Amino acid sequence: MVKFQDAQLDRTFSALADPTRRALLARLEQEDGLSVSELARPFPVSLPAIMKHLDVLAEAGLVTRTKLGRTVSCRLNAEPMEAAMGWLERYQRFWTKRLDALEALLEARRKGES
Amino acid sequence: MVKFQDAQLDRTFSALADPTRRALLARLEQEDGLSVSELARPFPVSLPAIMKHLDVLAEAGLVTRTKLGRTVSCRLNAEPMEAAMGWLERYQRFWTKRLDALEALLEARRKGES
Repeated sequence: MVKFQDAQLDRTFSALADPTRRALLARLEQEDGLSVSELARPFPVSLPAIMKHLDVLAEAGLVTRTKLGRTVSCRLNAEPMEAAMGWLERYQRFWTKRLDALEALLEARRKGES
Repeated sequence: MVKFQDAQLDRTFSALADPTRRALLARLEQEDGLSVSELARPFPVSLPAIMKHLDVLAEAGLVTRTKLGRTVSCRLNAEPMEAAMGWLERYQRFWTKRLDALEALLEARRKGES
């Protein structure tokens, strides 16, 4: 079970480690259910390259593809990101702590000025 | 600027896409400032393999290494994770929405039972 979750996290983080793949997800976040060619249009890369990126996203479970006649429609599936975010949340206290320290510093300075 | 941030996100997500690297970070989260050999001890992989993983983590800015005499001390630097989490937060509404729907369903069922 732990192993399975590990492998899923590997796939999620790995899929997100590419700017084109992140941009594809961001586009689907704006407008879900786009066809592969609609998705590919704004990118300065070839259609086969986009299809490869979609393969990686589909393997990670971040995109589902449905064939409707001759068109493949892509849908965003954000669920695997939940575990990725859960993993990162554990470290949140480090940057929150840093912000708290900064706030205390600014507060002390403000008091010194008044 | 956007390009730089993109490259940083690539490195962060890519560094997190490996279970050993995530485990190394989790260990440093528990006990910061461990030496490379202390860090390597619990893992069933060779010391050079651990050192390579630490290279990837250092390049992503997630770990800093300081030489103290003959010992290299490793410290966690969680800051790059903040941007990664910021990127994921945009998608949070998808699973939150799903939970809201589930809650509404359970609520309706509860009402039906009473």
